[in-house]
Amino acid sequence: MIEHIQPMDIEQRSFEIITELLGQRRLDPENELVIKRVIHTTADFEYADSLAFSEHAVQKGLDALRAGCDIVTDTQMAKAGINKTALTRLGGQVHCFISDPDVAREAKDRGITRAAVSMERAAGLEKPCIFAIGNAPTALLTLRTLLDEGRVSPALIIGVPVGFVNVVESKEQILTAGAPYIVARGRKGGSNVAAAICNALLYQITR
Amino acid sequence: MIEHIQPMDIEQRSFEIITELLGQRRLDPENELVIKRVIHTTADFEYADSLAFSEHAVQKGLDALRAGCDIVTDTQMAKAGINKTALTRLGGQVHCFISDPDVAREAKDRGITRAAVSMERAAGLEKPCIFAIGNAPTALLTLRTLLDEGRVSPALIIGVPVGFVNVVESKEQILTAGAPYIVARGRKGGSNVAAAICNALLYQITR
Repeated sequence: MIEHIQPMDIEQRSFEIITELLGQRRLDPENELVIKRVIHTTADFEYADSLAFSEHAVQKGLDALRAGCDIVTDTQMAKAGINKTALTRLGGQVHCFISDPDVAREAKDRGITRAAVSMERAAGLEKPCIFAIGNAPTALLTLRTLLDEGRVSPALIIGVPVGFVNVVESKEQILTAGAPYIVARGRKGGSNVAAAICNALLYQITR
Repeated sequence: MIEHIQPMDIEQRSFEIITELLGQRRLDPENELVIKRVIHTTADFEYADSLAFSEHAVQKGLDALRAGCDIVTDTQMAKAGINKTALTRLGGQVHCFISDPDVAREAKDRGITRAAVSMERAAGLEKPCIFAIGNAPTALLTLRTLLDEGRVSPALIIGVPVGFVNVVESKEQILTAGAPYIVARGRKGGSNVAAAICNALLYQITR
């Protein structure tokens, strides 16, 4: 049976249903809105268990966004999913280098992924950045190398690639990299999850 | 332990792992590449059970794409995820009306969703279309109404919205609408899943 509900109320009703379905499960209040928005985006309650947060990661992300930081994504899909109106209002913008022709050329020449080259490009940005990685484990592995070399200092790493080759391992490398992180442990994640986490942070400031 | 693997081989290795993990499970050969690409995109094996295909839906989608059909999406994320190089080579393009200012205005005036108005806009397109709906159940409900009124005749409906309000119900309405469909039954789906299904079809022609 179809629920008759006004467009503006659909999201609120969805979050009520998610809360009902979580039942007795208690979420850390600091992380609750991020976890619920990821479940809202995926209808997958496994994220209540798999999302890992470094200490005060959400607070650090909010502080960075309030200060006007930019966001770097590894895919055009993640970029498309981030609420640019909210981000622009805070003074930030989204960068995604994956489709740049010179990134493709360099990746081919060096025999590495475009995502890896994209992260090196992002290391040249002067503004503080949140890195939101929803697709490419090689982006996370490159970020770890850049961190170890002191070439990036992300305000927050959202590490939620999805898949089967080096995905679990790349996320584990971020857990010990020394930067603030929100990571979806295991194989699951995606560009939609990366965007949802960015929006969960943005909406805590702009709504 | 990190697998050292060339960028071009990552996808093939991922599909091998998916096949291994499916074990004894037999997929309908006609639908197999679509199912495996959705699992590749989500790392969620539930799709092996939840994806429902009308008779020869894949074949009908392939025929439409070969004939140069367009694709209509309900989100910019789904549009961003579709391989436009492959689609353009076949003579098609992607339409997404959700961000059009006049769509937003009309939706507000009528108290309906932008997704619903987007589908009415799409009904005015002259070319045959595949509708790829990854987010908004109201898009599917509107499509059903437009079908019942004879105002659209989709080459294929990819019905994979995600969420909690009217999502399951909207998909059930597509199963009985009389148009070819690929539907993810239940609450799960997403713009990434909609794009993955489009790409699974495109790659069967262009690779």
